[in-house]
Amino acid sequence: MDISAIANQALERAGEAVASKPNAAENLARLADGEMKAVNALILERMGSPVPLIPKLAKYLVEAGGKRVRPLVTIAAANMIGYSGDAHLKLAAAVEFIHTATLLHDDVVDESDLRRGRKPANLVWGNAPSVLVGDFLFARAFMLMVDAGSMDALKSLSQASSIIAEGEVRQLAVKGDIDATTGSYMEIIEAKTAALFASAAEVSAIVADRPAEEITALDTYGRELGLAFQLVDDALDYGGLAQSLGKNTGDDFREGKVTLPVVLALKKGDESEKRFWARVMSEGEQTDTDFETALELLDRHNALKATLELAEEKARTAQRALGVFPENKWKCALTDLAEFVVQRAS
Amino acid sequence: MDISAIANQALERAGEAVASKPNAAENLARLADGEMKAVNALILERMGSPVPLIPKLAKYLVEAGGKRVRPLVTIAAANMIGYSGDAHLKLAAAVEFIHTATLLHDDVVDESDLRRGRKPANLVWGNAPSVLVGDFLFARAFMLMVDAGSMDALKSLSQASSIIAEGEVRQLAVKGDIDATTGSYMEIIEAKTAALFASAAEVSAIVADRPAEEITALDTYGRELGLAFQLVDDALDYGGLAQSLGKNTGDDFREGKVTLPVVLALKKGDESEKRFWARVMSEGEQTDTDFETALELLDRHNALKATLELAEEKARTAQRALGVFPENKWKCALTDLAEFVVQRAS
Repeated sequence: MDISAIANQALERAGEAVASKPNAAENLARLADGEMKAVNALILERMGSPVPLIPKLAKYLVEAGGKRVRPLVTIAAANMIGYSGDAHLKLAAAVEFIHTATLLHDDVVDESDLRRGRKPANLVWGNAPSVLVGDFLFARAFMLMVDAGSMDALKSLSQASSIIAEGEVRQLAVKGDIDATTGSYMEIIEAKTAALFASAAEVSAIVADRPAEEITALDTYGRELGLAFQLVDDALDYGGLAQSLGKNTGDDFREGKVTLPVVLALKKGDESEKRFWARVMSEGEQTDTDFETALELLDRHNALKATLELAEEKARTAQRALGVFPENKWKCALTDLAEFVVQRAS
Repeated sequence: MDISAIANQALERAGEAVASKPNAAENLARLADGEMKAVNALILERMGSPVPLIPKLAKYLVEAGGKRVRPLVTIAAANMIGYSGDAHLKLAAAVEFIHTATLLHDDVVDESDLRRGRKPANLVWGNAPSVLVGDFLFARAFMLMVDAGSMDALKSLSQASSIIAEGEVRQLAVKGDIDATTGSYMEIIEAKTAALFASAAEVSAIVADRPAEEITALDTYGRELGLAFQLVDDALDYGGLAQSLGKNTGDDFREGKVTLPVVLALKKGDESEKRFWARVMSEGEQTDTDFETALELLDRHNALKATLELAEEKARTAQRALGVFPENKWKCALTDLAEFVVQRAS
């Protein structure tokens, strides 16, 4: 049974009309519109500083951020479980600040000219402001968490922050390593991406003082959603299944990041293919036609298809984790979101 | 009355023999030895990670750190007020982690070959690990604070972290600005240095649940001590009063950081001196003999002496702030520490 069928069933169970559902993220954003406006207001307010460069740079990045998937997850989860306070708004803003700080520091770390189609902040203002404004946003995230008033939520998000940094360092250490395995790749994306999604989801149950079972369920939902999200991202870096190449493709390839598509293609490749990957990934010697060759090899071994199948599997696990919660429109929206995350690439 | 006389009086009041006091920091370190061992054990334990590069780099920096002045302040303050729990050990370790994270990020920001006589971590391992391990230590600092269990201590240290980042960005923005004033300089060092000292001191009173008056007194002690510390540091960058030049001098000069000695020399300098400072600081054009010329100009206008007099004033304010506390050996040690911080440079 594919994800779309599961999602439709969920919608029917909740007694909702199954509309065309052009975009589940947009649907969720509409549902959460009022609260996301409050989150955005908090974000703008808390990135304020008398030092002019700070709000300028923070705004550039926050505005480029776009989707706000992580705070949306926090808001939707809080509503799904019927939380009636307002701590989730502060935690949602904190989650976005942590994500934004990570992006700023990633730009310095990746030393790329173009990330996801936008000019990195460090190439506009230099490395130094990117590092320092990242630190500022990180500190402000913790001030927001203090305001939210839950020590357990603080624990969850500070642990996630530590795990993210560990994941990024690990990714750095294996850059260009063509001996990377599916296992080592999954460990890295679990740390650098899924940990924050997991925390973004579970903090709602934590501030709402829900039983451990529900906290764990939301942690699982967020974690598996995050894994699906990153797997799809890594497939999209090679254009996804449609191999529709745009300005956002090829970042990982140019930086020698051995993501799952490459791991899978390497596993099935012959000696001459291994030599190709070693040259472009480990030795960093790339010519103009290499990216095209890489796409051919990924296609030959169905590497993008397999990556997206794994993403679908993770999305299904995320959806199943919501089983402990009663049906309502927010649960449907979270279910749809897991579907949408995967659909992006096909 | 000079600082040494005040310190001696304080020691006499406490009924202690006034020994030779070769080094007040060493004395305090001896007094706090048992607890500092516990703090060091915590630091080593909490910088552990399965990712090998992290403890390696963190250790390099923590070992180079040396004095541990900030956690010593936390420990001494906790003992002075008779705190009997163990949260201060975790907070002391957290304070050192925040300081260490800042140092790592400073290395990337400063782009210097040698900081305070040690080779910066980013030149040993590259910018990327310095940024990421800094983030890791910052996150671990917050995990330690969560363990300490005081939301108010978390508030104090997260605010301090945000203020530090603001101060660093502000410092960046005024780099090479020969129109800097004593006021703008003081604002920067209050943010980038004094805020963490203030928080390091006051968190002890916070976890000990002491009245607001004592929290404020320790905040003032830490803040003024931090100001004195940074003023002396900035004088030492030009060799201090003895103008004893070593491998640790000239960092600020080479980086075009307009610190108080330069601000004061500029204020009294004639047009040709202003042109000199503009060339070396703003335009960054430095020849081999320029540092010597700078030292001559600072000497001509008594700029280092005036900087150190201001440091003495701050140290005296720090000592006076301790007036609300009863006399004991820890109060003496904190009083001595303020003296020692200034003595370093004369």
